[in-house]
Amino acid sequence: MGGETRESCGVFGIYAPGEDVARLTFFALYALQHRGQESAGIAVSDGRTIRMHKGMGLVSQIFNEDILAFLKGDLAIGHNRYSTAGASRLANAQPFLIETALGPLAVAHNGNLTNAMALRQELLRRGVGLTSSSDTEIIIQILAGAKGETWEERISSLMECAEGAYSLTILTRRAVYGVRDPWGIRPLCIGHLRSGGWVLASESSALATIGAEFVRHVQPGEIICLDENGLTAIQGHPPAPNPAFCVFEYIYFARSDSILEGESVHRVRQRLGAILAEEHPAEADMVIGVPDSATAHTIGYAWASGIPFGEGLIKNRYIGRTFIQPDDRLRRLGVALKFNPLPDSLKGKRIVLVEDSIVRGITSQPIIAMLREAGAAEIHLRVASPPIRHPCFMGVDMATYDELIAHRLSVPEIGQTLMVDSIGYLSLDGLRRAMGGDGSGLCMACFSGEYPLDVGPLREWAKLAAEWCEEAVR
Amino acid sequence: MGGETRESCGVFGIYAPGEDVARLTFFALYALQHRGQESAGIAVSDGRTIRMHKGMGLVSQIFNEDILAFLKGDLAIGHNRYSTAGASRLANAQPFLIETALGPLAVAHNGNLTNAMALRQELLRRGVGLTSSSDTEIIIQILAGAKGETWEERISSLMECAEGAYSLTILTRRAVYGVRDPWGIRPLCIGHLRSGGWVLASESSALATIGAEFVRHVQPGEIICLDENGLTAIQGHPPAPNPAFCVFEYIYFARSDSILEGESVHRVRQRLGAILAEEHPAEADMVIGVPDSATAHTIGYAWASGIPFGEGLIKNRYIGRTFIQPDDRLRRLGVALKFNPLPDSLKGKRIVLVEDSIVRGITSQPIIAMLREAGAAEIHLRVASPPIRHPCFMGVDMATYDELIAHRLSVPEIGQTLMVDSIGYLSLDGLRRAMGGDGSGLCMACFSGEYPLDVGPLREWAKLAAEWCEEAVR
Amino acid sequence: MGGETRESCGVFGIYAPGEDVARLTFFALYALQHRGQESAGIAVSDGRTIRMHKGMGLVSQIFNEDILAFLKGDLAIGHNRYSTAGASRLANAQPFLIETALGPLAVAHNGNLTNAMALRQELLRRGVGLTSSSDTEIIIQILAGAKGETWEERISSLMECAEGAYSLTILTRRAVYGVRDPWGIRPLCIGHLRSGGWVLASESSALATIGAEFVRHVQPGEIICLDENGLTAIQGHPPAPNPAFCVFEYIYFARSDSILEGESVHRVRQRLGAILAEEHPAEADMVIGVPDSATAHTIGYAWASGIPFGEGLIKNRYIGRTFIQPDDRLRRLGVALKFNPLPDSLKGKRIVLVEDSIVRGITSQPIIAMLREAGAAEIHLRVASPPIRHPCFMGVDMATYDELIAHRLSVPEIGQTLMVDSIGYLSLDGLRRAMGGDGSGLCMACFSGEYPLDVGPLREWAKLAAEWCEEAVR
Amino acid sequence: MGGETRESCGVFGIYAPGEDVARLTFFALYALQHRGQESAGIAVSDGRTIRMHKGMGLVSQIFNEDILAFLKGDLAIGHNRYSTAGASRLANAQPFLIETALGPLAVAHNGNLTNAMALRQELLRRGVGLTSSSDTEIIIQILAGAKGETWEERISSLMECAEGAYSLTILTRRAVYGVRDPWGIRPLCIGHLRSGGWVLASESSALATIGAEFVRHVQPGEIICLDENGLTAIQGHPPAPNPAFCVFEYIYFARSDSILEGESVHRVRQRLGAILAEEHPAEADMVIGVPDSATAHTIGYAWASGIPFGEGLIKNRYIGRTFIQPDDRLRRLGVALKFNPLPDSLKGKRIVLVEDSIVRGITSQPIIAMLREAGAAEIHLRVASPPIRHPCFMGVDMATYDELIAHRLSVPEIGQTLMVDSIGYLSLDGLRRAMGGDGSGLCMACFSGEYPLDVGPLREWAKLAAEWCEEAVR
Repeated sequence: MGGETRESCGVFGIYAPGEDVARLTFFALYALQHRGQESAGIAVSDGRTIRMHKGMGLVSQIFNEDILAFLKGDLAIGHNRYSTAGASRLANAQPFLIETALGPLAVAHNGNLTNAMALRQELLRRGVGLTSSSDTEIIIQILAGAKGETWEERISSLMECAEGAYSLTILTRRAVYGVRDPWGIRPLCIGHLRSGGWVLASESSALATIGAEFVRHVQPGEIICLDENGLTAIQGHPPAPNPAFCVFEYIYFARSDSILEGESVHRVRQRLGAILAEEHPAEADMVIGVPDSATAHTIGYAWASGIPFGEGLIKNRYIGRTFIQPDDRLRRLGVALKFNPLPDSLKGKRIVLVEDSIVRGITSQPIIAMLREAGAAEIHLRVASPPIRHPCFMGVDMATYDELIAHRLSVPEIGQTLMVDSIGYLSLDGLRRAMGGDGSGLCMACFSGEYPLDVGPLREWAKLAAEWCEEAVR
Repeated sequence: MGGETRESCGVFGIYAPGEDVARLTFFALYALQHRGQESAGIAVSDGRTIRMHKGMGLVSQIFNEDILAFLKGDLAIGHNRYSTAGASRLANAQPFLIETALGPLAVAHNGNLTNAMALRQELLRRGVGLTSSSDTEIIIQILAGAKGETWEERISSLMECAEGAYSLTILTRRAVYGVRDPWGIRPLCIGHLRSGGWVLASESSALATIGAEFVRHVQPGEIICLDENGLTAIQGHPPAPNPAFCVFEYIYFARSDSILEGESVHRVRQRLGAILAEEHPAEADMVIGVPDSATAHTIGYAWASGIPFGEGLIKNRYIGRTFIQPDDRLRRLGVALKFNPLPDSLKGKRIVLVEDSIVRGITSQPIIAMLREAGAAEIHLRVASPPIRHPCFMGVDMATYDELIAHRLSVPEIGQTLMVDSIGYLSLDGLRRAMGGDGSGLCMACFSGEYPLDVGPLREWAKLAAEWCEEAVR
Repeated sequence: MGGETRESCGVFGIYAPGEDVARLTFFALYALQHRGQESAGIAVSDGRTIRMHKGMGLVSQIFNEDILAFLKGDLAIGHNRYSTAGASRLANAQPFLIETALGPLAVAHNGNLTNAMALRQELLRRGVGLTSSSDTEIIIQILAGAKGETWEERISSLMECAEGAYSLTILTRRAVYGVRDPWGIRPLCIGHLRSGGWVLASESSALATIGAEFVRHVQPGEIICLDENGLTAIQGHPPAPNPAFCVFEYIYFARSDSILEGESVHRVRQRLGAILAEEHPAEADMVIGVPDSATAHTIGYAWASGIPFGEGLIKNRYIGRTFIQPDDRLRRLGVALKFNPLPDSLKGKRIVLVEDSIVRGITSQPIIAMLREAGAAEIHLRVASPPIRHPCFMGVDMATYDELIAHRLSVPEIGQTLMVDSIGYLSLDGLRRAMGGDGSGLCMACFSGEYPLDVGPLREWAKLAAEWCEEAVR
Repeated sequence: MGGETRESCGVFGIYAPGEDVARLTFFALYALQHRGQESAGIAVSDGRTIRMHKGMGLVSQIFNEDILAFLKGDLAIGHNRYSTAGASRLANAQPFLIETALGPLAVAHNGNLTNAMALRQELLRRGVGLTSSSDTEIIIQILAGAKGETWEERISSLMECAEGAYSLTILTRRAVYGVRDPWGIRPLCIGHLRSGGWVLASESSALATIGAEFVRHVQPGEIICLDENGLTAIQGHPPAPNPAFCVFEYIYFARSDSILEGESVHRVRQRLGAILAEEHPAEADMVIGVPDSATAHTIGYAWASGIPFGEGLIKNRYIGRTFIQPDDRLRRLGVALKFNPLPDSLKGKRIVLVEDSIVRGITSQPIIAMLREAGAAEIHLRVASPPIRHPCFMGVDMATYDELIAHRLSVPEIGQTLMVDSIGYLSLDGLRRAMGGDGSGLCMACFSGEYPLDVGPLREWAKLAAEWCEEAVR
């Protein structure tokens, strides 16, 4: 899909007395970096004090040996935050850390509460002042004020009132908790260290990176407790009747070496490409993908169609965050930073171009123009997911209705706009087949508009949230 | 007194539509920099949004033109925080800013609550999670949860339960409030801009710097409201029967060009020196002071005694924060960073050395040795305040009992320890005379041990506070 | 080849009055970032003054809009420097900028002088003090002191005495020069902007990025002058009888969308893979490459062998510079930061693993172990270049003799060490065929040991250079 | 004189095997910080390698323990650079460090060469490229190219051709040299460590700070060599017939605890004040000085006149570098950052205001207005030096002719402009008396216009120097 903002967050938790838990958390966040590059943080407990460090930027920029040495302890949580345009500030970095009547508490959150606005108003009415516009602060203050003398009870209370997507890792003095909302919207899985400790992570790719074995995923509504008694699982809230795991995790978010809900992401992606080839064959000389997110889908298409897999685009791998951009005049003069074509590979060839998905269409357009100019004879655009017609309100910062190209235009119109010789999107049915069933248990709202939850109030809140305060970012 | 940690905080508030309030706040904090050098912050309201910036270090290092341009509005508050050894971190920087049911709220605080521990426990019991170990967060969360539909009512509620020292400036969407505890422990005064707006400041020296006229000081228990109706004063809480303005503000804290409670600090200091000369005359050739804090006291001594005022010590004015220190060996070899003697001025002379006060004695000792080595024939130490035998619990970070030299030793023993030819401290009575009365209305607890309030719980809390969390400072 | 240090540098030059030359240089350096990530710099002339900025890190981190605005002018040069272990310091960043009797002069250099030591001694003997250990300072001081009243004459003088690899861009008040050594060891090409200006770049990929058309490469021994007269080419030095373009640029360095000496890098890489498949076929289920450097070679192997192209390894794309590394114990526990395997893709499969080249073997080893552990039934290692048995002394920081695995071990021994089921390196003859000839005109010294120049003194110098000074890097 | 730019530089050198020479250099630079606050640097030799670190800002900001640990060795030099408006950049920071045919060489310089322009042209003609606009680079390249096989010979060669002010400390592999120009314009003195090593410093105040004993000052034209043979002194160049030590060092530059050319600065300043009192008595109630530079002069005036010494102005001691300034409107509203008056001390009083000197008059004016507004009945301005009518070309960045108030106006006109009740400048004769003689041996050119050297070419060069290059300061 190449460069459009579609990001989530990554969470991690570890209970491993005797290990350097801060360092392992660092490596895990490193492996989860693709889930968020705006900020990151680690909180560690030594059984008495919770020590924390968080900062803006990549994990590799935020931590150094001195800071890891400061983060001494036996249990920890960590968080990677995604980058959004406006509210990029340290005050929103996670974990959040507070003192409560039950002692210190740190929370890391992946997701979005759909009733955040109501919960926020309730907290304010209760006389709790809030320092940020973050859902996570709502969660942590609900935990601080919930009924119950144990954290398990309080987490259950939270699950009572919270609606929406939340995969949480929670750190107290003596335990790490993993919590997943009753719909199971965002991923969370359990791993076991060879040396004996337990870990929780958004994706199994983080387990592989730190040498932990994948055990299973956390169930919808489940609370996992990691402490001196090892792993304890309790059902904090009954699972929702309509589980709704985000299908977009398979299509784009997750790293392809991850196992989600028991399924290999890489295999799903190859299947998406293969079914796409069935649904939308093409007469062509070469199949190419947009690097790097569409590679597995492209291989699937190539294998199923028998058309050779090739390269047509080179991606600048050193593209850091830069605020220097070409202006319109330079763009017209041909300045293009992210991709370059391979003319000798494209010239005179009939090309199938595979995208994993199209959100706003703003990166597809110049890529297609670039391929054309480099001499491609025909361009057949194939998209390994259905048209995205609805925004996400469950933890993905994607786009508004008006920004979604498939909300504004029909598929043929998209093809015309992008000036391709043919266009084919995977069908919703094809997506279901690739997932090996009828789509039950999955949230496909961005394609179908059928949200598993009432998402009405969320939009308005987003607008209000920005208003009450701002902090200078230096 | 030369270099011992005895610091407070500085607060400021301004309501001046049409003026660049952020810039005026910047200049005022600049003028109040002597009250705290650890961190500083400014919060500004434009009637709808509160924008804030705070950072570690000197005011001049924290703000630049871009940040001032971001801080647009008509009303503002600002804060300078003092530096303490352990808890130096951004999370404790002020102002604090939260959203409440009545809208955004920012608070800047100078002082210490003596019942902070009890208030904190109450907030935690009420289910409010706390992010820091700061009294100011307690104050702001009490305001967020207080009864009352107006800020005036809520501030009165706060004054109901808060005990100890608090001079506050408070910013809401449309008003700035100035609040002083019923004892009037820490200073707060009102000024008027030539162009029409109103300001509040810890010291009148800040008024002079920004060209505002001194109006009066805020009364104990009073709430000042600055808004579109100009200045409104209400008595938020009855004044305490025993007002207790910190006498140490006169002796050391305040800049000598300030007017406190109607009295010129500079004149008080000269009187302290003059009465000291009466109480403890000396046969000497020259009176010198420890630069720069004891200059006014020294002039007072010189005038009253007829002994010429001179210089004996040069202070390194560019002494920034450095973590590079001489080790013991280098110290024995004579490395001395902060002061150097003026041998030609001292040689063979009988010297009266005036200190404004002595806390731990650790800077006096090397200074006296230095004067001796530079050839002073006699050294007569004169201290322009009584022996400090008790710590402060009302907003001054001074020392613990054991660290106070006058708690451990009698005055003659101090003289022997410091190896001076004679020593004289101002008497408590002399201090009262210099203040022009019987000492009523003043807190002299650090000299007399007679605290205006119950300070028992505070000590223990200090120890507990540090425990629950820590953040890496990079 | 995956992660072994083998880096070069990137140079750029532009003459384009009316364009924002600093911004175009920035974009070009961005496109050349793969040639060096340690430091970068831009120098711009406005016809009178040369303005420069350089810094450590990625191009995107070094420049911002303020700095680009400062770099006003009509002509410019830029440089990306590679990263080496020891001498990473700002003093070595390029361009170098000096004043000379003919006015200001800036130089950017890609390459290494083989007689640097002798030239350096000569400069010192001549009484020129040198501030760095960089070859580029030698070049610029030779230019400053060369005979000749014009820059063309002085550049010719330089070419008279300099031996080794040098592709230079040179900035004077009114002209940009591009210079290539008589052997043509490192690349340099000419482009033309659609709006009329001229550019010089190490690779044509930079031309594509800024929308310039590829014109031709600079000839060995040629001096290109860009000024108000447009482009002028003169032969500064007769071309060497044995031109020696670095074959490793095709194998690894250059971006695959570049055209070098008239040949598409991508096509060469596919041919290398195809000939490798001929020379070393394998019975296998899937061909995979080490991401991302071996992708084109792997596609070539797949096409020629008919074995399907697939993925077996996922690379962490957000791997910034981190100094946090797993210790041995963590490595044994399975911590692996850079790559993760795709078990579902590998399990039970016979794999051909394609590497573009192997230098020290230290990244191949854990990759192969990882594939094995992920379930690969057989691993057939195929290397798309001959064994590297000799270090490079012409501008590539590769390794010493002892570090080169193929210097220490025979090919079968390498196969045993890496524990693969079979191993095959491309033959020297196969490499020549892939280059479409008998290898004449190419430097293949790292494979054959036949250096085009006397490289004897270089090694010793390297050791001496580090000695005379060091600067603290903060 | 209060706040007008009049700065010099500070140099230091040490030979002390067994001591932590970098740390001692750090402390010495700390003590010399008043001589320059723009940048600082330390270079250390361990007998083989010279290690260096330099940076922008205060000494305390540039160095930390890690850097000091890196700077290992037995001998070192250090430098503080003054701050000028335009050319504030790291490339001009000192020491300069190069490799030469005789090995590594570092130089720190206080002063200005009057024939810099000619020497620079000669170097350029000789083919030496120059990287900066600094005199120090000229000196170091002359040393690199001078005749002679020993450093002593080369330094003598340098002294042959260099004209103007130069107090140098020079570091080679095995020795530290101290050099003073034949006129002895800028100070340089020798000290002895209690533990046995030798040091060189611009001022004896630095010796006192590091516990070294003052030995003597370096003679005009003398070269001091500190090495394994201890201290060796040779006459590198015959002393000029007209020695010309800068009298302004006594009046303003040097710290008052320094001994210069055998005279106590503090005592000279008191004498200046006393003679000023004789020459220009006043009927007044109090003598005040501008803090802090005029304190000693003011005490002298007070003692001689019998008028009591008092305080009338408070200086903001925390005034860091800030780029935030009040605009004209705010100034008119009374915003004043640097000084505040003491109204209760001034009201109704007849005041003698002592300045050490007046350069441009731009700080005097607002101070006098401030005193007047605070209620001073009369203001009698007394200046403890003659009118400054000529710029300095010997190492002081002072002002141009047009900026000097006494160049433009007569003394009575100055009095009118500054709106004082009376004005009195010390006479040239009074200055000579205070110096204890007829002024021979002193440079008083800024008062008399009688320069000890031809300074003609210097001015023009200053203008040209800025032109050839600029570097972005980030």
